[in-house]
Amino acid sequence: MNCEIICIGTELLTGDTLNTNVNYISKHLSKNGFSVLYQTTIGDNPERLQQCFKIAAGRSDIVILTGGLGPTQDDLTKETIADFFSMPMKRNEKQVRNMKNHFDRYNYVMTDNNFRQCDIPVGAKAIDNTRGTAPGIHIEKEGLSVFLLPGPPSEMSAMFDLYVMPILKNRIDQLVISRYFNVCDLGESMVEDTIMDLVSHQNNPTIATYAKLGEVLIRITANGKDAKQLNERLDQYESVILKRFGDHIFTKSQRSLNQVVGKMLLDRHLTLASAESCTGGLIASKLTEIAGISDAFKMGLVTYSNEAKEKMLHVNKMTLEKKGAVSSETAREMCEHLKSISGCDLAVSVTGIAGPDGGTPKKPVGLVYIGVCGKNECYIEKCRFNGNRQTIQQKAAQKTFVLIRKMILDISENHKYN
Amino acid sequence: MNCEIICIGTELLTGDTLNTNVNYISKHLSKNGFSVLYQTTIGDNPERLQQCFKIAAGRSDIVILTGGLGPTQDDLTKETIADFFSMPMKRNEKQVRNMKNHFDRYNYVMTDNNFRQCDIPVGAKAIDNTRGTAPGIHIEKEGLSVFLLPGPPSEMSAMFDLYVMPILKNRIDQLVISRYFNVCDLGESMVEDTIMDLVSHQNNPTIATYAKLGEVLIRITANGKDAKQLNERLDQYESVILKRFGDHIFTKSQRSLNQVVGKMLLDRHLTLASAESCTGGLIASKLTEIAGISDAFKMGLVTYSNEAKEKMLHVNKMTLEKKGAVSSETAREMCEHLKSISGCDLAVSVTGIAGPDGGTPKKPVGLVYIGVCGKNECYIEKCRFNGNRQTIQQKAAQKTFVLIRKMILDISENHKYN
Repeated sequence: MNCEIICIGTELLTGDTLNTNVNYISKHLSKNGFSVLYQTTIGDNPERLQQCFKIAAGRSDIVILTGGLGPTQDDLTKETIADFFSMPMKRNEKQVRNMKNHFDRYNYVMTDNNFRQCDIPVGAKAIDNTRGTAPGIHIEKEGLSVFLLPGPPSEMSAMFDLYVMPILKNRIDQLVISRYFNVCDLGESMVEDTIMDLVSHQNNPTIATYAKLGEVLIRITANGKDAKQLNERLDQYESVILKRFGDHIFTKSQRSLNQVVGKMLLDRHLTLASAESCTGGLIASKLTEIAGISDAFKMGLVTYSNEAKEKMLHVNKMTLEKKGAVSSETAREMCEHLKSISGCDLAVSVTGIAGPDGGTPKKPVGLVYIGVCGKNECYIEKCRFNGNRQTIQQKAAQKTFVLIRKMILDISENHKYN
Repeated sequence: MNCEIICIGTELLTGDTLNTNVNYISKHLSKNGFSVLYQTTIGDNPERLQQCFKIAAGRSDIVILTGGLGPTQDDLTKETIADFFSMPMKRNEKQVRNMKNHFDRYNYVMTDNNFRQCDIPVGAKAIDNTRGTAPGIHIEKEGLSVFLLPGPPSEMSAMFDLYVMPILKNRIDQLVISRYFNVCDLGESMVEDTIMDLVSHQNNPTIATYAKLGEVLIRITANGKDAKQLNERLDQYESVILKRFGDHIFTKSQRSLNQVVGKMLLDRHLTLASAESCTGGLIASKLTEIAGISDAFKMGLVTYSNEAKEKMLHVNKMTLEKKGAVSSETAREMCEHLKSISGCDLAVSVTGIAGPDGGTPKKPVGLVYIGVCGKNECYIEKCRFNGNRQTIQQKAAQKTFVLIRKMILDISENHKYN
């Protein structure tokens, strides 16, 4: 069943608001086997909405609209769509009561224009709004299912979860099963090359790759009616993918690399300390996104200046002067000293030039040294990242997690997916 | 001049990727006086792209497309648009050289399918990609301006800023002048209440408020042909806004609060050290987003565990045992000791419960103590934030920057906007 999403709101067209609604709806529809083929955004303008809705009605089975249901003058979504279907409006008493209750509960003063929200096209269903005042609208007409949802994300998502999705789920007899593999330390074209034979003959399951910062997501998706059959087909593909990518696959459940590394540390009762220069706390902050990580992550230092590298990490003044703060020698001293200061099982250090200034021909912007000390050994990796300051910091942090993971795998033989 | 944006990418339709490109382009076009009337997203499907592009060509003057320029099989944007205009393809030798250089520089292995990216429609211009490999395309045909940009946000934005916007800016005769005021430490409804009289009689300039995490943005925008007249009108509004919000306004140039605080430190030659528990490096990482911050930000500690608080910050064992790690006493010792250890002008400490576990009735999730030591005085603020773990961490970091800013303003009288 083909779905189309139309978002209404001038604030979306001016870029003042990031459109997260369309992402939310698309994700949930796709996961349940619906194809979203078009997403359109327009302003609070009845003519353009008429025009877009007419196009949508001609090519889709289900049209979901968000925005323009509020009490103000420029909220005209409901009127425009009712007009399209030639449905008159009628005030809905249940919705008037709901709204009065809502205003009482929050001690808000109710203005007259609020009642406009309770006018419902005759023949349509009102959808209760559990988190705000504007009810949604559900229209079934001319073989088309139309849902009008409010624009505020919390109201929209509640209505979508509680009303829209349960209705739509009943209509689909098709099963959609997806499996995900996140690959690190390989570029997208390399990943695609590795499975080119599968990609070029894909049908059911389909196979797709998505590049993300410092990682690539592979998704295989099978459609059909028999779960056992679909899973058998997916198993065949999965075994090929696991064999070809081996340890490059860091998760099969779409976790982020930092979460996977955090869980690996916790599962294995390993402790970690970090000393960051050019990433300036990004690695520490990505680790502490994880609840309970204090059992593993014991100490983080941001030794952004040379003074801090000497004072906190006892990096040799001579090393800093002769080799420079951005050098494999400094990276090595940083993580070796940190390991003994902290008493942790693992210590990592990052030092580099995030830019935009500070680069030289010999040490250009994007040059980063990462050190990782494990139980017995210590390795230093020289990297060169492109992008702006923030991208370089993020790529360096991502690469550090790749290297921590490698070290954990070296230490502990048994690899399982997180 | 009417603009339309078409984003191509199946990952956008499935909700696997949030569409930030459309927001970026829309924001910059609107700011410069262009009307974005439609945003459309479709998958990697040539027929649907043909169909959408035909509709766009019939109703817009400028069409900007993103995505589908990469090296893989399903990247078909360029071919589809060239087909629409009946333009043949030709390999562009300059782009081949660019690409080889790029691959050499980063020591990547180049696969054959990469060269497809260097095929440019005859009569179109290739736009250099300064951050990746796929060149953009610029077509002027049949009264229509068409720009094809790559999907990865960093590549897209660089190309848009360096090539597309300078060309479009030359074409516009309507002036749009906006001014921005970012307000901290006040909620959105409080901000709106304070300027309700201006909001309810708005016309030209228009006035709007947007809530963001821990801050509110006020925008006033005037349209017309005479810059002097527009600026005079905006001046009137600005003086009212500045008077009513005073020090709550932290920037008039849409910088983020961490950037403003970083610049205030650098301008005043003040140094800062941080010790973070529940924010786990987030404050350090937000500071080091700023180029050149090493002159001001000298040392960051992530003392996530009690051991680290004792070892690195000499927090009294008794304090930790009797008052707990999350207490005003611990926050005070953390920042007072940090100030003397680091020798910095300012020291901040954060300790709290980010959740989801670890809360008690007396010390619930979201309880955070923030300490700031200045030249002579030290204050500790007790806060209570709601939201999930990540939101609590982000709100705590934002509040810490509010408090650092306050301390800097206390120290140095002369306040100017950054």
